Amino acid sequence: MNSKFIVIEGLEGAGKTTAREIVVETLRTYGIQDVIFTREPGGTPLAEKLRELIKQGMADEKVTDKAEVLMLYAARVQLVDNVIKPALANGQWVIGDRHDLSSQAYQGGGRGIDPQLLLSLRDTVLGDFRPDLTLYLDLPPAIGLQRARARGELDRIEQESLAFFERTRARYQALATQEPDIVTIDASQPLENVSAAIQATLREWLQQQGLPQQPVALSQDCD
Amino acid sequence: MNSKFIVIEGLEGAGKTTAREIVVETLRTYGIQDVIFTREPGGTPLAEKLRELIKQGMADEKVTDKAEVLMLYAARVQLVDNVIKPALANGQWVIGDRHDLSSQAYQGGGRGIDPQLLLSLRDTVLGDFRPDLTLYLDLPPAIGLQRARARGELDRIEQESLAFFERTRARYQALATQEPDIVTIDASQPLENVSAAIQATLREWLQQQGLPQQPVALSQDCD
Repeated sequence: MNSKFIVIEGLEGAGKTTAREIVVETLRTYGIQDVIFTREPGGTPLAEKLRELIKQGMADEKVTDKAEVLMLYAARVQLVDNVIKPALANGQWVIGDRHDLSSQAYQGGGRGIDPQLLLSLRDTVLGDFRPDLTLYLDLPPAIGLQRARARGELDRIEQESLAFFERTRARYQALATQEPDIVTIDASQPLENVSAAIQATLREWLQQQGLPQQPVALSQDCD
Repeated sequence: MNSKFIVIEGLEGAGKTTAREIVVETLRTYGIQDVIFTREPGGTPLAEKLRELIKQGMADEKVTDKAEVLMLYAARVQLVDNVIKPALANGQWVIGDRHDLSSQAYQGGGRGIDPQLLLSLRDTVLGDFRPDLTLYLDLPPAIGLQRARARGELDRIEQESLAFFERTRARYQALATQEPDIVTIDASQPLENVSAAIQATLREWLQQQGLPQQPVALSQDCD
């Protein structure tokens, strides 16, 4: 079986980091241990420079919506071509904290950029490269933002209005309904339920991919 | 008469800076003195940051052709939206050292990115915003590169092969033939002939725009 690219998506504070840990542990029970992590925007030297420009903005200049989305795609194509594709070709699994769906949701929903333009940009820049599975952690923005704010200072995008995040969530939800490779997880549940939902989704998907579960205990360190 | 956006294009060493001075002096003889200069990529704080990334590249990472072109367009839309359009709206003339045609020529010709993709990117990012007049300084690359090298150290793009610049020139020439707003100036002539050609082209164009020449001597300081 070829290695896969699994993406975790959702609003700020949806629990993406915790979800990643659950994914890693679940993969381990299938004997999959050669896993790398990516985050977007970022994950290569150039993409991290772009991340900084996107997240911090400029003190003396408005970053236009179009410049933002072009920088996001520049960072993304660097990451895909220089990190994700080589890793997959090398037999490593890749778990991504955000990928293209974030641009569709934040820039298409939140910023109001024409969704068709964004899909066309995706196809132009990435060709037919897509994640194998996307876990979308769905959550009312007010709850997510409260969690994110409790963690510390907010960046330029995290400072957007609640209405911005409501539009972003609506676009996430619409795309998750349309695309069979995106599975929605209700992230407003108690953590143990979220965890169980992620595990169940991933196990079902791995079995659909023809992968048998390995007799490895979750708590055991297999390295 | 509305103010205009005039762009000077050409390979490295084609004489763009000298051409700009000739354009400024010619405009002055028409009473046009409220002129600003732009250069691309660059010309805003964010665009200059992107210029640096594009020109210098990364020590430890290949900049993909697609990331390069996306960063160029991010810089361009910042410049157009935050500098060029406000200046034109404010009655100022804008003289640009490079604009979109450079991407069509360098990335489409030199790098071999699909020209249709670049035109589609241009339309997506810039809408129908175009220069009013483009002066393309045509020159065999070997001559231009010799001049550019004599000026000092070459950046990442200037270090490309002669074949890269031959392809870039061919694309410049093809587009200059197709587009009525691009005028080709033979920049391999002696400077006085180049200068005369630019003046003649610009005067004819200004008269077509309905602008009468002013009784102002070229050598006089009119400020």
